[in-house]
Amino acid sequence: MPHADSSLVPPEIKSKAEFWAHVLEQLTALIEGQRNWISNLANASALIYNSLLAFEQFGAESRAVNWCGFYLESQLFPISSPDADLLLLGPFCGKPACQFIRAEKGKGVCADAFVSREVVIVDDVNAYPGHIACDGDTNSEIVLPIIHRDHAIGVLDLDCLAISGFDEADRVGLQAIVILLAKACDWPKFSM
Amino acid sequence: MPHADSSLVPPEIKSKAEFWAHVLEQLTALIEGQRNWISNLANASALIYNSLLAFEQFGAESRAVNWCGFYLESQLFPISSPDADLLLLGPFCGKPACQFIRAEKGKGVCADAFVSREVVIVDDVNAYPGHIACDGDTNSEIVLPIIHRDHAIGVLDLDCLAISGFDEADRVGLQAIVILLAKACDWPKFSM
Repeated sequence: MPHADSSLVPPEIKSKAEFWAHVLEQLTALIEGQRNWISNLANASALIYNSLLAFEQFGAESRAVNWCGFYLESQLFPISSPDADLLLLGPFCGKPACQFIRAEKGKGVCADAFVSREVVIVDDVNAYPGHIACDGDTNSEIVLPIIHRDHAIGVLDLDCLAISGFDEADRVGLQAIVILLAKACDWPKFSM
Repeated sequence: MPHADSSLVPPEIKSKAEFWAHVLEQLTALIEGQRNWISNLANASALIYNSLLAFEQFGAESRAVNWCGFYLESQLFPISSPDADLLLLGPFCGKPACQFIRAEKGKGVCADAFVSREVVIVDDVNAYPGHIACDGDTNSEIVLPIIHRDHAIGVLDLDCLAISGFDEADRVGLQAIVILLAKACDWPKFSM
């Protein structure tokens, strides 16, 4: 099967629970045999993004997901002066995005999810204190922290063009995906 | 300006030469101050992909670009056993893709561009010997090698839904982009 077809959504899938179980299964197959986080997160963001666009029950056109990707601890990146308080842009699908986020409470949804280590669902980003508008078309957002050996090492961030684009079923489905990714990749600087 | 707006194409831009000069200017601004290749290539693929989708003269819908991203030397990735003959999937926009490519002549368009260190434009991928079909909808392709200090370190790969989607003007424009990226990023294992 061509890899692109992993983001097709079979017509018999109707509920969000079935959808997320399907995406998790496809992701498991897609990243099998590879443990570097760059390739795995690149394919994960593409799979989630394109599967959501192909799933009518989620929302299309004016209700579509418009960004899906990762920000990660600067210590994971090949740079000379990593700064533990900085999250750097990782693989994503969507329009160009902020290159970094300061990992301090109050510096936006990604920063808050990372610092609190809790999933944050925002129904209306324009009403969120400290929101960083990488894309003025975004109206709602969900951010999940990625936890490895008790360290927060990054976040998975999804944006939606609609108000209240994400709900509890998305939280549960995406939570299983970040747990898989944390386990399926090597995180060199956090393995001691 | 929100980062997403860097992929807007002003209506006064009509020719491909003007388009690629505009994309190069936007990319220069987008990656300023950041030298890690992961963040920079993630934003570069998003900028090129979304700018092409926003540029009517390139091709929309059935003639759209459907993949834009990078494969890079495995030695650049945080893995335990790098294999100099393997290119691994880097940041990209589009549907999920092959996780790796064997860097040997005859193993597809990316491999041939990498090994020969020459840009390869393929008008019809289905007629190309050794073509790897990551997405059955792709009909044409352009692949540019990325050269750093006389090493080939990876490739920039674009796919198009149309036959003969890429021409000489695209080659010239994208060549300037890969030269910028090679210079603007640090490539730790290739800096001796």
